Amino acid sequence: MLKVQMITPAEVVANWSPHLEAAFEEAGVTAKLGTDFDPEEVDYVIYAPGGGSADLSGYVNTKAVLGLWAGVESIIKNETLTQPYARMVDEGLTEGMVEWVTGHVLRHHLGMDAHITGRAGWDHSPPPLARHRKVGILGLGVLGSASAQALARLNFAVAGWSRSPKALPEVACFHGDAGLAQVLEQSEILVLLLPSTPETENTLNAETLARMPEGAVILNPGRGALIDDDALLAALDRGQVGHATLDTFRVEPLPEDHPFWAHPHVTVTPHIASETRPETASTVVAENISRVEARQPLLHEVDKSRGY
Amino acid sequence: MLKVQMITPAEVVANWSPHLEAAFEEAGVTAKLGTDFDPEEVDYVIYAPGGGSADLSGYVNTKAVLGLWAGVESIIKNETLTQPYARMVDEGLTEGMVEWVTGHVLRHHLGMDAHITGRAGWDHSPPPLARHRKVGILGLGVLGSASAQALARLNFAVAGWSRSPKALPEVACFHGDAGLAQVLEQSEILVLLLPSTPETENTLNAETLARMPEGAVILNPGRGALIDDDALLAALDRGQVGHATLDTFRVEPLPEDHPFWAHPHVTVTPHIASETRPETASTVVAENISRVEARQPLLHEVDKSRGY
Repeated sequence: MLKVQMITPAEVVANWSPHLEAAFEEAGVTAKLGTDFDPEEVDYVIYAPGGGSADLSGYVNTKAVLGLWAGVESIIKNETLTQPYARMVDEGLTEGMVEWVTGHVLRHHLGMDAHITGRAGWDHSPPPLARHRKVGILGLGVLGSASAQALARLNFAVAGWSRSPKALPEVACFHGDAGLAQVLEQSEILVLLLPSTPETENTLNAETLARMPEGAVILNPGRGALIDDDALLAALDRGQVGHATLDTFRVEPLPEDHPFWAHPHVTVTPHIASETRPETASTVVAENISRVEARQPLLHEVDKSRGY
Repeated sequence: MLKVQMITPAEVVANWSPHLEAAFEEAGVTAKLGTDFDPEEVDYVIYAPGGGSADLSGYVNTKAVLGLWAGVESIIKNETLTQPYARMVDEGLTEGMVEWVTGHVLRHHLGMDAHITGRAGWDHSPPPLARHRKVGILGLGVLGSASAQALARLNFAVAGWSRSPKALPEVACFHGDAGLAQVLEQSEILVLLLPSTPETENTLNAETLARMPEGAVILNPGRGALIDDDALLAALDRGQVGHATLDTFRVEPLPEDHPFWAHPHVTVTPHIASETRPETASTVVAENISRVEARQPLLHEVDKSRGY
């Protein structure tokens, strides 16, 4: 009987336990979930930030730490993490992200807001076709690649950027600093799906925002730290950026007095773009335990030196 | 030298002529466009409603009438039309429709309006995944089929309905009266893409609206006459229908005093969902002339007895 310690907020323990137990049973994993096992006896840790002590130094026999969230920036700074760490890559999470990105790209492409608020009236000017709309995606990991391909299937002219070279069907792929400048210069709608690392902090700042076409739209379902908030507000105020639709923020919930809330060209969504779904994500946790027990490699293991 | 008479509004003559001439040249069609050829000498008519006399009885040597719009309800009632009539089926038009339908389905699926208007605040409840969202499409012609498949590719649970049986990959297809009732009963979001015929008038009426799940969303990019407006307003007022996003109306532009404009649960878009684009549509006209000259069958010919 494997011992699986949950180091997560209490509501996660409550919401996830039935789904995890069902997934263990389905995967043939014989395990007991707990929150106060002796660390030395624990086989696996299930981790989500905000659940008490994150000191993992006592977990000397733990084979892997299995994250429930896609983001890794808090755990990766934890110096007591010496065990292999798998971040969550959940089909439901990817699907939800693709839906949010596709929906908000189409919203801006079609100019929906003017119709939703009624201010357009019978102003009869159809939008261009998607094949004439240039969309950039920064970050071509699982979420960025899936979003880029969904947009390409809708005929959008999609350019993708990643730090190292990548190739994706129907997507023009760029990399490195020169590639970033090219994607920024051509993107009428730009989607941020980079991981949060020291290198990616403030990817959008006064200088990079100034490279974008006037009136460009920014979507940030990635991480709050990718954007220099003050630079974005200044770019919005002078019309360099036409609109920003933001799902992630440096502080969450976004404080009530933050200028994003009241800005007429900012839409705030409350970190809903990619929500881990217990139903689908629990099967990923069970599969990973089952793999490690069978001496197969851990899926979605984080490279601590790269930070993702 | 073929003579091609344009019976269209003057602005269509101005906007389309350069595109048509370029498309003729590309297709190897030697033709002259005009607006006042002697009807007896005309080889082909290019037709759009609203461009003066629609008396086609003098066009005794005309081989085909080539429509510029997808809709046929006005021309089909014209008793002087004895020539073969081709309606416009344009890739650009289909793409535009797929974009409008996909965008507005995602908008309602994600509950965007509450974020766009700011009234949701930090209300942290993610939507279900598309695979758990039931979308119905009434009408599986070119536009309905393309929309249904785009939604299925985004994982929506799509049911389609047509008068006669059809089969589409990834779409549950229904037909006939019993099939219509089934699609209505299960559709959280319903898209109307039926042609406008005597049989389809008021497809959504008090009785059919009452079959839908409480709070269902209606999208009508098809034809205004598909809906009984008073029945829809009553269903909106009692919450049976949660929202209606309408692109087509019985009278267009939608009159300023029409209750749809002010209704809090109605979004009006000004007949922009499928706009024929001169660039892409001109090549369809040229191809059809070229086919008839080569004694091949006319594409997209309308069956006057069925009305589409």
